[in-house]
Amino acid sequence: MKHLLAAADLSPTEIRFLMDAAKKFSTVDSAPLLQGKTIVNLFFENSTRTRTSFEVAIRKLGAGALNFAASTSSVAKGETLIDTAKNIEAMGPHAIIVRHASAGSPLFLSKNVSVPVINAGDGFHEHPTQALLDLYTMEEKLGDVKGKRVVILGDIAHSRVARSNIHILRKMGASVAVCAPPTLLPPVPETLGVDFAYRPEELLREADVVMCLRIQLERQNRMQLPSLAEYTAFWGLSRERAKLLKPGAIVLHPGPVNRGVELDTEVADGPRSAILNQVYNGVLVRMAVLATVMDRPKLEKWMKG
Amino acid sequence: MKHLLAAADLSPTEIRFLMDAAKKFSTVDSAPLLQGKTIVNLFFENSTRTRTSFEVAIRKLGAGALNFAASTSSVAKGETLIDTAKNIEAMGPHAIIVRHASAGSPLFLSKNVSVPVINAGDGFHEHPTQALLDLYTMEEKLGDVKGKRVVILGDIAHSRVARSNIHILRKMGASVAVCAPPTLLPPVPETLGVDFAYRPEELLREADVVMCLRIQLERQNRMQLPSLAEYTAFWGLSRERAKLLKPGAIVLHPGPVNRGVELDTEVADGPRSAILNQVYNGVLVRMAVLATVMDRPKLEKWMKG
Amino acid sequence: MKHLLAAADLSPTEIRFLMDAAKKFSTVDSAPLLQGKTIVNLFFENSTRTRTSFEVAIRKLGAGALNFAASTSSVAKGETLIDTAKNIEAMGPHAIIVRHASAGSPLFLSKNVSVPVINAGDGFHEHPTQALLDLYTMEEKLGDVKGKRVVILGDIAHSRVARSNIHILRKMGASVAVCAPPTLLPPVPETLGVDFAYRPEELLREADVVMCLRIQLERQNRMQLPSLAEYTAFWGLSRERAKLLKPGAIVLHPGPVNRGVELDTEVADGPRSAILNQVYNGVLVRMAVLATVMDRPKLEKWMKG
Repeated sequence: MKHLLAAADLSPTEIRFLMDAAKKFSTVDSAPLLQGKTIVNLFFENSTRTRTSFEVAIRKLGAGALNFAASTSSVAKGETLIDTAKNIEAMGPHAIIVRHASAGSPLFLSKNVSVPVINAGDGFHEHPTQALLDLYTMEEKLGDVKGKRVVILGDIAHSRVARSNIHILRKMGASVAVCAPPTLLPPVPETLGVDFAYRPEELLREADVVMCLRIQLERQNRMQLPSLAEYTAFWGLSRERAKLLKPGAIVLHPGPVNRGVELDTEVADGPRSAILNQVYNGVLVRMAVLATVMDRPKLEKWMKG
Repeated sequence: MKHLLAAADLSPTEIRFLMDAAKKFSTVDSAPLLQGKTIVNLFFENSTRTRTSFEVAIRKLGAGALNFAASTSSVAKGETLIDTAKNIEAMGPHAIIVRHASAGSPLFLSKNVSVPVINAGDGFHEHPTQALLDLYTMEEKLGDVKGKRVVILGDIAHSRVARSNIHILRKMGASVAVCAPPTLLPPVPETLGVDFAYRPEELLREADVVMCLRIQLERQNRMQLPSLAEYTAFWGLSRERAKLLKPGAIVLHPGPVNRGVELDTEVADGPRSAILNQVYNGVLVRMAVLATVMDRPKLEKWMKG
Repeated sequence: MKHLLAAADLSPTEIRFLMDAAKKFSTVDSAPLLQGKTIVNLFFENSTRTRTSFEVAIRKLGAGALNFAASTSSVAKGETLIDTAKNIEAMGPHAIIVRHASAGSPLFLSKNVSVPVINAGDGFHEHPTQALLDLYTMEEKLGDVKGKRVVILGDIAHSRVARSNIHILRKMGASVAVCAPPTLLPPVPETLGVDFAYRPEELLREADVVMCLRIQLERQNRMQLPSLAEYTAFWGLSRERAKLLKPGAIVLHPGPVNRGVELDTEVADGPRSAILNQVYNGVLVRMAVLATVMDRPKLEKWMKG
């Protein structure tokens, strides 16, 4: 595992190893496994939240973070992705974390630089560290996800979070169903290899996990979304709708939450919500990913010690 | 003292302790009392100057600073203050420094997160570290402020700096007078518990300290400010007007200075000016505040050692 | 050498010392010569690339970098350069790196603060660390530049890179020729003390180094540039034109490259290109500059040890 480009690339063994490493990191305040290393946050899309999570992970590993916000960089002057990357590589960092609006950018990068590349979200393609932290949170709350039912609710068609989660959950033996208005489902939902329904009521009773996706409000202007009120009325996880859930079922959301749209405040802040656990676990999982791709022997030794 | 939310909350004993700690910090280049800690700068308002001062203080204490500029964050996507704060807290920082346009935000935050919160300016309410550094500078230049006369000149109505200073100076036994055009005084100035005058000439002769506040140029458009030329002519601390001051009286300004508006360049750069001392002392006072709220026992031990 | 303000100020002995120091830094991963020091990046012009190079250099020397992006600072509120600098100085950094649109700003700064000032580009004046890294790259590829022919191609009139290179190359005994459309040459090119030609074909055959400058696309709007297509056709380093070069001649570019404008992709990525070496060497040279102006005795001791 030289890079982390896509959840689709990971074997169940690799996923298990990352979960074990993250769990081990949860037992310590910090673990200077990457002391003296420099890691670049190359973000072509704005995301203070994900960038900060990586930055905290980098520091807890004893490494240094270099933030390279592409909007204020040469990219604005028309530089190509590959030139930006080559230039950054020439400055000698030890890994590059990349977020980019184009699907496949991290793969492209990984073929053109010699250091590990970590995908922090690429277009509609994948967001593998999000899916890993979601898995970690499910295991923390429910134990092994094998045989568990995970319902993903929201904009499936445009969600890299859904895509990465489907890959990882299927590999780990969970059963996945997705639910969205027809305009926010892929044209042929069967190709995702999961069950689907147009109405949440068909799925909620059997769910162990409900993952509400963030609604990108700009979709409404593109005619892909009914009115927000309609979305909330029919697909939002309201207090009423949440009552359909089994005891013990949990609610996830990748954040930031549009309160009152994807889910009611009572649900977001209620006992089923594991949303803040996701944020906390994000740091642990990102520590695991960084330490694995950058110095797995040292990580394994530390995990045993 | 778990948080620093408002100068109004501080007792004279606490203020004295912070002054003593700041003075002790002035004798060393750095003091790694907070090694391994991470402190978030959560700035919803732009302020490179205050943020940098905190950042230098954080580093001198051996801690790490995480800058979270809210304009480029999820807040721009409509996230609520409380969600932003909860998310930041979930990433595991050890304190949060917050600047926000709404009065009371730091208090609100402090009730919703478990780590210390430091107010770096909230609306028209308070800016306690500014008032503490002002006090430190006065004591450095004039000794005990008890019985000293401090004249605050400028936009009293909208100034959190004035408000925090009035609280601290009164607690420490100084006598305060404010002076502004009628539109820039509160409707009932007596409620501030200080003397006031509409013309600086009435106050300058007796002043030990003149604190010129920054004029927010946008007030002019809101009809709260006479023309700048008129403000300068009647309320600016001109070279001529500064001649009214007693020997030894000092001039302060929270910066950045509008030269030729609030005070003449000759005054800003003259022997009475302690403006750059304020900047220098700002780092010391912020070190004192951070060390006090985050690990007072360690600070006290270090001060004795 | 208290500051680095201009290549014009450097003696051949000082240049040689900086090259030797940079070479020594190329043999180590890091060298904590400036541990505990804080260095401010005061950038009034956006330049993620140069700033990042300095930031990497600062970290490799064990120091801390404080980024002070002037667009988001008090400067936007109308503060003067000198006030910004005095305020930054009062916070106690150990050196200031400045980039500013006005020629002479670093000199002005150096006369008003007590810490070393390093020029990271000032208007059309100088960019000395760029010229030093260019020299380092030439020496690395070609050995001593004495007697070598360096051809600079592009917007000579507005290029601080060209100006700094001409100073350094002449001091080190290289022979320099410049080439540009008449509108992008200074009115009296002879004052540069170098040869010049309007067409690259007159110079390329004899060149040991071709340095292509970046074309600022906005010049086209100001009528200083023929159409980009015309520029590329007559002054671009095309694959065809590059065939005129001697074996062993190298191609440099300060970046970011406008591929297909200043030079063809085949040339930028071809065996003659030393463009990425420039980026890599930039970190080494900046380490040398910082260590020299901030603690030369320690640097010299380290170089011997």
